[in-house]
Amino acid sequence: MKASEIIARKRDGQELSAEEIGWFVRGCVSGEVPDYQAAAWLMATYLNGMSQPETVALTRAMAESGRALDLGDLRPRAVDKHSSGGVGDKISLVVGPIAAAAGVVVPKMSGRGLGFTGGTLDKLESIPGLRVDLEVDRILDQARQIGLVIASQTADLAPADGKLYALRDVTATVGSLPLIVSSILSKKIAGGAPSIVLDVKAGSGAFMRTTDEAVKLARALVDVGTACDRRVVAFVSRMDQPLGRAVGNAVEVREAIEILQGNGPDDVRELALTLAAAMVRLGGLASDEPEARRRVDACLASGAALVKLRQMISAQGGDARVVDDPSLLRTAPLTEVVKSPRAGYVERLDAGIVGSTLTGLGAGREKKGDAIDHRIGIMFHRKIGDKVATDEPLFTLHLASAARLPEARGRILAAYAWSDRPVESPSILIQKFGAR
Amino acid sequence: MKASEIIARKRDGQELSAEEIGWFVRGCVSGEVPDYQAAAWLMATYLNGMSQPETVALTRAMAESGRALDLGDLRPRAVDKHSSGGVGDKISLVVGPIAAAAGVVVPKMSGRGLGFTGGTLDKLESIPGLRVDLEVDRILDQARQIGLVIASQTADLAPADGKLYALRDVTATVGSLPLIVSSILSKKIAGGAPSIVLDVKAGSGAFMRTTDEAVKLARALVDVGTACDRRVVAFVSRMDQPLGRAVGNAVEVREAIEILQGNGPDDVRELALTLAAAMVRLGGLASDEPEARRRVDACLASGAALVKLRQMISAQGGDARVVDDPSLLRTAPLTEVVKSPRAGYVERLDAGIVGSTLTGLGAGREKKGDAIDHRIGIMFHRKIGDKVATDEPLFTLHLASAARLPEARGRILAAYAWSDRPVESPSILIQKFGAR
Repeated sequence: MKASEIIARKRDGQELSAEEIGWFVRGCVSGEVPDYQAAAWLMATYLNGMSQPETVALTRAMAESGRALDLGDLRPRAVDKHSSGGVGDKISLVVGPIAAAAGVVVPKMSGRGLGFTGGTLDKLESIPGLRVDLEVDRILDQARQIGLVIASQTADLAPADGKLYALRDVTATVGSLPLIVSSILSKKIAGGAPSIVLDVKAGSGAFMRTTDEAVKLARALVDVGTACDRRVVAFVSRMDQPLGRAVGNAVEVREAIEILQGNGPDDVRELALTLAAAMVRLGGLASDEPEARRRVDACLASGAALVKLRQMISAQGGDARVVDDPSLLRTAPLTEVVKSPRAGYVERLDAGIVGSTLTGLGAGREKKGDAIDHRIGIMFHRKIGDKVATDEPLFTLHLASAARLPEARGRILAAYAWSDRPVESPSILIQKFGAR
Repeated sequence: MKASEIIARKRDGQELSAEEIGWFVRGCVSGEVPDYQAAAWLMATYLNGMSQPETVALTRAMAESGRALDLGDLRPRAVDKHSSGGVGDKISLVVGPIAAAAGVVVPKMSGRGLGFTGGTLDKLESIPGLRVDLEVDRILDQARQIGLVIASQTADLAPADGKLYALRDVTATVGSLPLIVSSILSKKIAGGAPSIVLDVKAGSGAFMRTTDEAVKLARALVDVGTACDRRVVAFVSRMDQPLGRAVGNAVEVREAIEILQGNGPDDVRELALTLAAAMVRLGGLASDEPEARRRVDACLASGAALVKLRQMISAQGGDARVVDDPSLLRTAPLTEVVKSPRAGYVERLDAGIVGSTLTGLGAGREKKGDAIDHRIGIMFHRKIGDKVATDEPLFTLHLASAARLPEARGRILAAYAWSDRPVESPSILIQKFGAR
């Protein structure tokens, strides 16, 4: 085969064969296909799209481009979870412990935050001592012993995705549905779990700005994942406003703990229980949806999920006392309560503005490899639908110093809009796709 | 500016500014814009096209990416000539001497053959001793002394074109009108002549397979060249069958000499005189077209053009005796006359098949840097419209050895088709565009 001929066929809108796609992807990883040929192919794919068989072939080729995790006898109960990324999305820290407490094996490989979205690994590293760069053997041991691991993706897992994503990032080819689908699923398939629960976010604080786009992505993930012999459930959830009340690394870990303690905001609890119930069903630990829901409700209520979180933190070298004493988390030296400039009902709280403001303040990364400050964050006291009086606390800023305070206050206030009439509080879930 | 943003704008079909294009092209040459970003941009340009202002900006940026030839006081009379490439295209070897004899200054930078098309430099190197890699000062001296130089493009002339062409070649982005136009014109603009005569070939032995495509390219070359302050005339000429009777390096030089001696095939003479007359007009050496034509006819008839060729060969270190004794050219050890398998009128003689057969035999290059055998070639005794009897000589193969003889004979015979009824001999010229 010749790389330039495969590029030419994609350029002309022709359908590539699985053999051609497999050859091209292997060439990208081996270096036989140089970056400039991969880049031209990515742009042709961005502009001409891919059929479903092509997307399936690409996903398989990327999944098979390196080592795959062999979960052995844990496999039947193993369920992976993935979020398309949002602002305040600490769901993995809640759903993992709940599902594990219900008997699911959760061997989760997570990512770091980039741009306006946070990353689960960054959040976990707010816990003193906790390590996320685990060897494969250690991941498997921990999955066997406590049923829950959240670690960084090992370099030899689906290396084609790392390679192609780095190129997409600099060649304006990130936002292509088949490339997004194959990137997400190839890592999950190489991760070894036969079942996958996906949380596709829609709104200003997500990669998919509209529900339509998110629905398209969710459907494609289910269809392609199923064609790759995985059982896949995908939820579309709302990301117009931040999820929960906490945004930032340490403050989100604290909120996740509060949920597992039986408190915390309703949207986080509802989304986590929904995803966890789907994981319980896919893991074969409940015979129908109501039973799965009862099971995860019970694991939360009994404190079993909190125990799992504690076990995971300890197993990964972290200080598990944070679960009982969240003040042991990295804490910002300055907190400032910002009051509402007017009375009314919160009509808007733009998650995109919140996310990019926090990134600008150092809580997230502008680009890969940037250092972040885990202490920086925001607690929202009023969200969409809430009634607020003038001078009532609206949000609290957690900052490293007073230098950025006026800017942060101004930008977050600008993320709010008020109405004089009552505003309905939006439901967190929009739609569900796949395995029913 | 950011390369990824410029790529994204082209990806989305937006019009780039001259500043953006200039920045991007300079970055490609300096290395600040890496090859993979250039490749993604080339594919986006291939698929989304370019407006005329964008193509003008790209042409200017590429022309200005290196050194430009300063022709000084020679400039008013300087006219460049370029062919889009064809099979048997020895026109530069004829038109250059004729135009120079008429007083035009012809400082021509040529290329080497690639794929099915030959290159003027390769043809010239059939002449023992002749050098084409001349320093800039030597090019200028020779232009001043005899009005005619045919040399290889110096590396510092429009380096962006060399860079981008090499990338286009391996990323399936060669066949894009704005990229072709800017590639051709940027080199000609950097070459310093204020006027350019272009020969755009149409047919199976050309890059533009149809007259429609060739007309589009010719129009675009005239429009963009004019917008870059050049006077441009573009001819569309036929390339369904090889030009002239000779195809191959040494045999084409011999045919060019024959034309300059007052003999040789009509199509070569007609095309050469037409192009030379246009050069004389653009060089300000005749006040109208009929006068220009009379002038070039006279230069051919008087032998003045042949004198120019002899002067150029000597000036570039070649053995000028070849002009009087063509047997001094590199000559193939084996010649084989192939006879017509049937009687009738030649209806077709596919230039594309002829070109690729000769490349396969070693007369041309499959890829850049391949060595070629100047001795290999074909002389056609019957072309489209000619009547032929069974067993009359159809063509003569000039080969290095008998090993490839059966294959060469079979392939060239397959390039022919016959008709029982008379077939009209096609005219060489199709259309003219620009400065009238």
